[in-house]
Amino acid sequence: MRQSMTLIPTLREVPADADVKSHQLLLRAGFIRQNASGVYSYLPLARRVLVKIEAIVREEMDKAGAVELLMPALQQADLWQESGRWYSYGPELMRLKDRNEREFALGATHEEVITSLVRDEVKSYKRLPLTLYQIQTKFRDEKRPRFGLLRGREFIMKDAYSFHSSKESLDDVYERIFTAYSNIFARCGLNYRAVIADSGAMGGKDTHEFMVLSDIGEDTIAYSDTSSYAANIEMAPVKASYEKSGEAERGLEKVRTENQKTIAEVSSFLNVNETQCIKSLLFKIDGRPVLVLVRGDHEVNDIKLKNLFEASTVELAEAYETKNILGCEVGSVGPIGVKNVEIVADHAVESIVNGICGANVEDFHYVNVNPGRDFEPSRYEDLRFIKEGDPSPDGQGNILFAKGIEVGHVFKLGTRYSEAMDALYLDENGKSQPMIMGCYGIGVSRTLAAIAEQFNDDKGFVWPEAVSPYQVHLIAVNTKDEAQSSLSETLYKSLGEKFEVLFDDRQERPGVKFADSDLIGLPVRVTVGKKAADGIVEVKVRKTGEVLEVQTDKLKETISSILGF
Amino acid sequence: MRQSMTLIPTLREVPADADVKSHQLLLRAGFIRQNASGVYSYLPLARRVLVKIEAIVREEMDKAGAVELLMPALQQADLWQESGRWYSYGPELMRLKDRNEREFALGATHEEVITSLVRDEVKSYKRLPLTLYQIQTKFRDEKRPRFGLLRGREFIMKDAYSFHSSKESLDDVYERIFTAYSNIFARCGLNYRAVIADSGAMGGKDTHEFMVLSDIGEDTIAYSDTSSYAANIEMAPVKASYEKSGEAERGLEKVRTENQKTIAEVSSFLNVNETQCIKSLLFKIDGRPVLVLVRGDHEVNDIKLKNLFEASTVELAEAYETKNILGCEVGSVGPIGVKNVEIVADHAVESIVNGICGANVEDFHYVNVNPGRDFEPSRYEDLRFIKEGDPSPDGQGNILFAKGIEVGHVFKLGTRYSEAMDALYLDENGKSQPMIMGCYGIGVSRTLAAIAEQFNDDKGFVWPEAVSPYQVHLIAVNTKDEAQSSLSETLYKSLGEKFEVLFDDRQERPGVKFADSDLIGLPVRVTVGKKAADGIVEVKVRKTGEVLEVQTDKLKETISSILGF
Repeated sequence: MRQSMTLIPTLREVPADADVKSHQLLLRAGFIRQNASGVYSYLPLARRVLVKIEAIVREEMDKAGAVELLMPALQQADLWQESGRWYSYGPELMRLKDRNEREFALGATHEEVITSLVRDEVKSYKRLPLTLYQIQTKFRDEKRPRFGLLRGREFIMKDAYSFHSSKESLDDVYERIFTAYSNIFARCGLNYRAVIADSGAMGGKDTHEFMVLSDIGEDTIAYSDTSSYAANIEMAPVKASYEKSGEAERGLEKVRTENQKTIAEVSSFLNVNETQCIKSLLFKIDGRPVLVLVRGDHEVNDIKLKNLFEASTVELAEAYETKNILGCEVGSVGPIGVKNVEIVADHAVESIVNGICGANVEDFHYVNVNPGRDFEPSRYEDLRFIKEGDPSPDGQGNILFAKGIEVGHVFKLGTRYSEAMDALYLDENGKSQPMIMGCYGIGVSRTLAAIAEQFNDDKGFVWPEAVSPYQVHLIAVNTKDEAQSSLSETLYKSLGEKFEVLFDDRQERPGVKFADSDLIGLPVRVTVGKKAADGIVEVKVRKTGEVLEVQTDKLKETISSILGF
Repeated sequence: MRQSMTLIPTLREVPADADVKSHQLLLRAGFIRQNASGVYSYLPLARRVLVKIEAIVREEMDKAGAVELLMPALQQADLWQESGRWYSYGPELMRLKDRNEREFALGATHEEVITSLVRDEVKSYKRLPLTLYQIQTKFRDEKRPRFGLLRGREFIMKDAYSFHSSKESLDDVYERIFTAYSNIFARCGLNYRAVIADSGAMGGKDTHEFMVLSDIGEDTIAYSDTSSYAANIEMAPVKASYEKSGEAERGLEKVRTENQKTIAEVSSFLNVNETQCIKSLLFKIDGRPVLVLVRGDHEVNDIKLKNLFEASTVELAEAYETKNILGCEVGSVGPIGVKNVEIVADHAVESIVNGICGANVEDFHYVNVNPGRDFEPSRYEDLRFIKEGDPSPDGQGNILFAKGIEVGHVFKLGTRYSEAMDALYLDENGKSQPMIMGCYGIGVSRTLAAIAEQFNDDKGFVWPEAVSPYQVHLIAVNTKDEAQSSLSETLYKSLGEKFEVLFDDRQERPGVKFADSDLIGLPVRVTVGKKAADGIVEVKVRKTGEVLEVQTDKLKETISSILGF
């Protein structure tokens, strides 16, 4: 492609409203422009990256046995009323009326449409399993669209849905799509983790988020420094083993700790390590008070509490509720002498010897507290957030934390939609059963942004080969010089037979061309300059900055080897 | 693809609400399903045809020098207010509000978005011309969605827009895209014509519609039986030459023609050919009365009248207006003695000798009327619709009529949008000028339906090779027979290396499989039946019905030759 014929409107300045690197560079390098808050045009370069990502997605989905179709954006309200989401989805679901006042949703996701389609067309177990996917535009009226393509209101998504007559079949397809997703993100060059995510009552292994590691991510991932283990920090079980110190138990004492409320204050005041303290927090679990104990250096993980009690709501008690129930302020709560309130404790608490806890009297704490002797929880469980340095739950290596951008999600839906919408099939015995479903999404335009976020330096993008808009940036330094002009035209033609070439044929100053080239960030730059008459050009590797002088007859070979062909 | 793994829900019955062949077959062969009036899901087979059409469109557009981008469906109201179309577009434009009560249109077309983009990014003649296109979903709330995909409310379109600093540059790109469109529809196998269409004041050669010939088309095309000439019937100039008969002029006579009003009645009553009659119609052209004369067997073309008078409105006068102005009823109107009303006549009228016309008195006509002697029009012009048998306006062959489905449109927009929206550039002299624009559309999903309409027989589809969802339909007659099952699996694998194969591995009766296969209509069917053990299969050519027995070692060769590889 001749640069004079396409639209790559680069900018010298960092746009004022773009606060993350990918958004800044996508604007500066002329990849996207904003049409409205959270709504973008993909200019020619971005379109080419999208095409490549989509091709990778299709290849891997097809390989996993999924079949592509295309469903509409306009979705009749009655489908969403059947599933109940017309009422529960809130203002994120964009709605409109047609000329006959019929209500429609703009597809935010397609569970309803696909479930109604499969319900109408598939009646027998013989036609299951069935896995269908599409790559399509989605609409979600985000409250705070931000970070450019990372959280937009109109975006491109690959969504897939599977239908099954058994859990085993769902497990099998889930596994295949999991593999497909791993391949997709790896082929895009991304540093990602498949992260165990919260699936509520269904249990941790039935949903994974694919997270691209990035400081601007909104989620925290706990991952192993050795294995592929990764989980949303909320979901990571703690498999640490704690050992009691050999210290002899001393007698319980109540000590004055005036104005010392937090663990930091109390441990410092009493000159002990935070690990000696018992952090005691009163929760309301489905409304019932429960006293939760963790070690002073640990944090209570309320998702674990929720799952433990199979509860709908888990909240920290208000100060006045704590006062009513335990007779003291929040900073003085402890388990000793507590009656009529269930006490649960994290495993780490069990190993504390001669510890510290609140005395349920303001300005007093107990010292030399020994669990089992001085109080007895109803049970010891895994109740805390995992920490960096904890052993990885899979037994391999230790935990590190990272921030992540969610680019994919696989989820065992079960029968939530098939039951609500009567998607039934007849089983081998002629009995009507709800189909078991899975759903699987990839944010295609978000993946573009995630790649943009991971692959750049201070000069601009450094696109990974597989998704780079073009492979080679051919630059004629001076298009008015006969030798340069003629050689660059010849090379444009010959390189074009083997590579995707962007040819900067513009009449611009060399400085502008080089700066634009670094900004756009194609893997290889070929510069036709003063040595054109001698048949010598300069090849620059964007990633390493390495520069070579190459005879034109060796040029294809050199480029191929840089691109890893 | 194994048929057991995909979704091809064929139907035995013709769906009640589908009244054209393409719609019936797309439903019956399991290509599409309706989600709402004018809104469809493209099931896996249709999706594959779309992909192939889109690939052809992209190849040809790229070859024409156009560059692909992707614009959003959500379009802010203020852009449409700038162009004025927010007010003029009517209920066909779907509108909605976001959570902040901001108004949006759902893109029915993208002139506003692209004009604002190019206005913001292109400032100099040096960056022109620029031709951009996208393949994207469009929304138009049709009053009467019908014929399945042919007139839907959500559909796929390829829309392109070009920007220029001169008319010559626009002409050049128009020509390239015209060629691209011709290639696209030819490669899709379609019997189409590029038809001169009405562009209002801009003149006939500045817009063409690409029409697929079909009896269900809503437009009439006049085309040459010899050359590629074709025009919307409204636009075809009449280049007929008329000769006066040698007959001597006789004296004008007024005759009684009681209750004879139409040309048919009068000519029959007076026992003359309709070609002897002068049809006289009173029009209001921009409100002014004009008497228009054509030969009795001809029809007045009001578009030609409109263009002749450069008028905004052309209407036939009401009966009471005719009475007021000419003093008689519509059936007795004629030019003789008419004063204060301009008379214009079609060229054919000039050659009438001893003709018939109304006498402006009820129940009376003149006979032996001779133009020039008995009345004098202000001018003779081309005022009638072309007829079958007329000479083609390009001088080659004669005119035939056909009905057409519009699948593409190329249009020289001029500065309509750039002036309304301030899309200006600086010319060589530093002077600000509005960009000159062209726009070019292809209905991608409509093209699918047009192909479906043209390629079928009484058993189902007969897909042209280039856009067929798969190339080969492999059928195992009896999957429980060991030899058949094993050979068909082997062939599925080996044919799959060279061809796109749909493999009917379902446990269905042979009759069901064959009927489905004919309905789906892939070019080649390979049936693995009783001779499987001998390594012999049956090959059927869908188009001709020809059946061959083929040894499996010759199978690839046979299929290649049928597909024209």
